[in-house]
Amino acid sequence: MKIGIVGLGLMGASFAKALKRYTSHTVLGLDRDPAVRESALHDGAVDEVHEDPAFLSQCAVTFLCLFPVQTVAFVKENLSHFQKGSIVADICGIKGYVVNALSQMELPFIYLPSHPMAGREVCGYHGSLESLFVGASYICTPVDAPQYAVDTLESLVRSIGFTDFVVTTPADHDRIIAFTSQLPHVISNAYVKSPSCSKHNGFSAGSYKDLSRVAKLNEEMWSDLFLLNRESLLSELDTLLQNLAQYRDALAREDRDALRDLLREGRIIKEECDQ
Amino acid sequence: MKIGIVGLGLMGASFAKALKRYTSHTVLGLDRDPAVRESALHDGAVDEVHEDPAFLSQCAVTFLCLFPVQTVAFVKENLSHFQKGSIVADICGIKGYVVNALSQMELPFIYLPSHPMAGREVCGYHGSLESLFVGASYICTPVDAPQYAVDTLESLVRSIGFTDFVVTTPADHDRIIAFTSQLPHVISNAYVKSPSCSKHNGFSAGSYKDLSRVAKLNEEMWSDLFLLNRESLLSELDTLLQNLAQYRDALAREDRDALRDLLREGRIIKEECDQ
Repeated sequence: MKIGIVGLGLMGASFAKALKRYTSHTVLGLDRDPAVRESALHDGAVDEVHEDPAFLSQCAVTFLCLFPVQTVAFVKENLSHFQKGSIVADICGIKGYVVNALSQMELPFIYLPSHPMAGREVCGYHGSLESLFVGASYICTPVDAPQYAVDTLESLVRSIGFTDFVVTTPADHDRIIAFTSQLPHVISNAYVKSPSCSKHNGFSAGSYKDLSRVAKLNEEMWSDLFLLNRESLLSELDTLLQNLAQYRDALAREDRDALRDLLREGRIIKEECDQ
Repeated sequence: MKIGIVGLGLMGASFAKALKRYTSHTVLGLDRDPAVRESALHDGAVDEVHEDPAFLSQCAVTFLCLFPVQTVAFVKENLSHFQKGSIVADICGIKGYVVNALSQMELPFIYLPSHPMAGREVCGYHGSLESLFVGASYICTPVDAPQYAVDTLESLVRSIGFTDFVVTTPADHDRIIAFTSQLPHVISNAYVKSPSCSKHNGFSAGSYKDLSRVAKLNEEMWSDLFLLNRESLLSELDTLLQNLAQYRDALAREDRDALRDLLREGRIIKEECDQ
């Protein structure tokens, strides 16, 4: 079948390359940047590139690989172009905002809100990889989409490397993602602001590397994602600040028992959560 | 030559196994637990095991693989047993406390305070690995030890897999380690205390795993290490809390520009620190 990819950045071009590599589907790409269109065609990441979204009427499945605000704007402006009854998935890191915005429109397609759990610390077409999704988890929040559409999407994304397909609600997605993904990005970005950071070389067995990895982020995208999930992230940040203050206070008053109990509690939670 | 290993836990037994695997030195181990002594001998991790520290008089190099307070107590009680002029290295994660305590004693040996940057989320003899130090960094704070002793130690630890040998002062070590190692353990342990933690499966591309990895720690050892480096760790914690509060406040007042600027600042620091 024909699969449309809207936006050939890190994620979109990785979808295109993976589909070309692992499936026999025809991949049609759209990007506003002529240089990206040329690279994608030259690299064989797509079968065709387009500037005009009219080609979407040919696509049985379309992946919208844009930032949240752009995703909503693109759908609104191009409603008439999508194939009637086709499957359209977005890839936005927050779901409540996008799902709410699209639910205000009369959609000609079956919308499958999605969040592929994959990324890199580089962005844009030139960061894309055909192997980006190998072993990754694909989250889908179908709301009331028909099961056959969910099944079609699941089978398609499994064919390009995803090994988990998690179905949940937009609200649960946004709450959990605030903890598993957004909070680590804030912590990591704040962590490296210590004056000791520049001296880290040779002084870590991996803790520094793990903790600072996602400090290198796309600040435009993440500030939008954070604001669009403001309440959940604020709640996670407040929980963390309160917890950290407990360790800080036990340390300040040299209370070894309290410190050890706090650490034991965390160790046990970690062991239980990973079972 | 004969090398003594005092304490056959995770670190000591890994030293023993690595020395047996990668060198032709004779390895003599001491442990108070008969079951550990038996396992070590049975596994060929050591050439001899001892309960009585008198054998240390045969050792040209000794690694003290004990927790900080035990290290100081062991040296104090066994001063007469060490070979005169031999090299003795400890492995404690904080250096100021141990160096200060040992400087009060009349040491018959050349003391090379050390901190091998390697570990695992399991402890004890049964967690030990001959490959634990491959690619790792060995920190040494020799104070006024003679250079030939430092060179001997460097060459020995490089032969068992260490690829970096960092020489610094106890004070600098303790300040930097508070940031690169201690702070990540506190953050990680506090992070998993969110009510969302139990639902993390399938909701992360690696951020959760990286951030929560060291939450599984030995709370007895780490509470001692934190308290013995209290001022440096408190200062790192306060810096982090202040920085995190800035993101929190920008998010709370929906100030996108401030949030983006905070994130950009962190991204640039991370890029610069890893150059």
